[in-house]
Amino acid sequence: MDSTLDIAHASPEELAALHADLRAQHRDLVAANLSLDLTRGKPAPAQLDLSSALLDLPGDGNYRAPDGTDARNYGGLTGLPEVRAVWGEVFNVPGAQLIEGGNSSLALMHDVVVNAVLHGTGDGELAWGGQQISFLCPVPGYDRHFTILEGLGITMIPVPLLADGPDMTVVKDLVAADPQIKGIWCIPKYSNPSGSVYSDEVVAELASMPTAATDFRIFWDNAYAVHHLTEEAVELADILATCEAAGNPERAYIFGSTSKITLAGSGLSFFGGSAKNVAWLQKFLFCRTIGPDKINELRHLAFLPDAAAVTDLMARHRAVIAPKFDMMLRILAENLAGSGVATWTTPKGGYFISLEVPDGCASRVVALAKEAGIALTPAGATFPYGKDPKDSNIRLAPTFPSLADLEKATQGLTVCVLLGAVEKQLTSTDAV
Amino acid sequence: MDSTLDIAHASPEELAALHADLRAQHRDLVAANLSLDLTRGKPAPAQLDLSSALLDLPGDGNYRAPDGTDARNYGGLTGLPEVRAVWGEVFNVPGAQLIEGGNSSLALMHDVVVNAVLHGTGDGELAWGGQQISFLCPVPGYDRHFTILEGLGITMIPVPLLADGPDMTVVKDLVAADPQIKGIWCIPKYSNPSGSVYSDEVVAELASMPTAATDFRIFWDNAYAVHHLTEEAVELADILATCEAAGNPERAYIFGSTSKITLAGSGLSFFGGSAKNVAWLQKFLFCRTIGPDKINELRHLAFLPDAAAVTDLMARHRAVIAPKFDMMLRILAENLAGSGVATWTTPKGGYFISLEVPDGCASRVVALAKEAGIALTPAGATFPYGKDPKDSNIRLAPTFPSLADLEKATQGLTVCVLLGAVEKQLTSTDAV
Repeated sequence: MDSTLDIAHASPEELAALHADLRAQHRDLVAANLSLDLTRGKPAPAQLDLSSALLDLPGDGNYRAPDGTDARNYGGLTGLPEVRAVWGEVFNVPGAQLIEGGNSSLALMHDVVVNAVLHGTGDGELAWGGQQISFLCPVPGYDRHFTILEGLGITMIPVPLLADGPDMTVVKDLVAADPQIKGIWCIPKYSNPSGSVYSDEVVAELASMPTAATDFRIFWDNAYAVHHLTEEAVELADILATCEAAGNPERAYIFGSTSKITLAGSGLSFFGGSAKNVAWLQKFLFCRTIGPDKINELRHLAFLPDAAAVTDLMARHRAVIAPKFDMMLRILAENLAGSGVATWTTPKGGYFISLEVPDGCASRVVALAKEAGIALTPAGATFPYGKDPKDSNIRLAPTFPSLADLEKATQGLTVCVLLGAVEKQLTSTDAV
Repeated sequence: MDSTLDIAHASPEELAALHADLRAQHRDLVAANLSLDLTRGKPAPAQLDLSSALLDLPGDGNYRAPDGTDARNYGGLTGLPEVRAVWGEVFNVPGAQLIEGGNSSLALMHDVVVNAVLHGTGDGELAWGGQQISFLCPVPGYDRHFTILEGLGITMIPVPLLADGPDMTVVKDLVAADPQIKGIWCIPKYSNPSGSVYSDEVVAELASMPTAATDFRIFWDNAYAVHHLTEEAVELADILATCEAAGNPERAYIFGSTSKITLAGSGLSFFGGSAKNVAWLQKFLFCRTIGPDKINELRHLAFLPDAAAVTDLMARHRAVIAPKFDMMLRILAENLAGSGVATWTTPKGGYFISLEVPDGCASRVVALAKEAGIALTPAGATFPYGKDPKDSNIRLAPTFPSLADLEKATQGLTVCVLLGAVEKQLTSTDAV
């Protein structure tokens, strides 16, 4: 395979030869009976091993919170203050304004939307549930964010996500004009899947932009706050302080978790916001539960007693996964760079690489990969309603497979990308 | 103090003397500066000690589920099958129809109501949220059940709770007539606070009674399924099978937890129901979370590998708390039995004793106790909207205090009950 062949400008003869060669390579892949998976943004076993200490913490007899409370019993709706202080530092929220809420930040996001649907945001505005409301969804984005809204019948309006955040020209026009636009999903750092990091300018605009809705909210899912892939620990502006300074102190709801820091299914999750927003959520939490699992909080406090310990742990995560990103990026470059049919992101952190193939090709590439035993995230998953209007985006998740599997999967993937692109080129040539 | 004096039939002189004596006793109590608490249905530290093994489980390296799954990672929306099998036996639900859902069964109850409000119950009927609906609330009952409904604006209709379950004559008439009555709260075994146990006949009637609402649901909070206080492990009819046999297979939503079995804030909770209801809930769980804490499930599986282990553990709980109930009942009998002003329940299980004082006296007794440093559950808490129409019920929780504290608190309580009753008798005598 001539990986330097520019497919768009190839001669019919060159295209035919490349097509035959790629078909043969794809047949070999299918025959190899692979079973590889690039779909899941899951930590690898070697990453989970980094937190194996949690498996016998807090340890026999260690059930007292720092203030002497028996953490085994009921009580404490918002979590232990010491835990909230540590993670408040990580997520840039004062500990008193951070609530620990169990093993899933997705659940906190869901419940915050549900509370606003049922009761309103506490601004004196109507409950969202009685109205046909909308959210802005920077794309490509995270499918589980979209699932929450779709389940509640909230209209999703895609807006382009650029390298430094959402396209603010589009965002500002929309929110200024339409009072039924009540929210925007943001993964402000190392975004899923593009790796975008919101610039200070974008954060300032989000915080200060006039919105027709007085109960407009930024859903700030800081899922990858400390998940660096390079030496550069990219800094993110303080959304809470920026909103307050802009005169919109209640605008941001902040979410975070330890899911990709400690044990993915058994960690802590957090909601942060203004004191008023925290009180608002607390009122509904009281209707729902007696409190979070304080023993799991003690486990995490013993294992990660301060923000510095979190930084150390994340450096060890990076040592496991940065080589996987490097390998995937190297193979993509080697096999696709000269072809002119694909572009991809080079994230400085997070869990994903976002791959762009020619318009109309993403579904075909995913299907070709499936035939070859390589599971890819369904085309369209990164868009609201699962519909990528250009059918061009594919989310790649390199963290979970072993390096050996990842190499095979990425090599196979590039064959599928090229084959899909050549097929399209041949079809469009035929059509001329 | 003559504890055999029948207050209602005492002479004015006897009453005046008793009043003076009780006032003196109460003054002594106030002077003693007690700080005692009979409010909380919380396990005592000695009970939590019974599950101290959980504090270093599952143990280093033990992160595999029985089927080999790495339980540290994401995945598994409904919990590990082996855990569901053990607790399915405890709660009389097939394991495949039981979902493990985190550390709080209250949260599961809340979320089930919220899902029905937002989406309906999957019967093809309307979402509950668009209508003014009602629930039947057997009283006295559990305040946190009422809080869920109050928060959602659902009307609560109190119905009398008898020793063998709700007054079914009342219940059947109401549900047959009103299609807006969508549910009933039930704590079918060792009910909070009365200790009532639903008889087989009541269970059969609940399962089979005609309801005007086709989407009527029984919220079956089996919180004290294995929490026996006597040798007699009272049996409860199988609500799921009974509903199915009656032709109402989707009628019962079953809830349970390990909160008062292992560690109160760090246990497992469960939802059970028909296959259709389980699928219904699962659809909404998917919008909310990736799954429950499977490491905590492994912990519990190692500690309580089968239902027999649960039975053994509950016998040890009984050894801690049965003496507390015995002491409280003995003191109530010694100090109040002859007075004619109070009755109370003698539960065979659960966490509470329900005390009835003369009409209009409960608030006064609680206030007198508070002056004496004895915290009682607020009068009215066991009724919807916190309003006991007769102001006569007080919930007593003997499990948490030490035996020594419990003795002091109960002795003091009886002084307050008698004083409250004598005050009322004097007032009504004056009024004649």
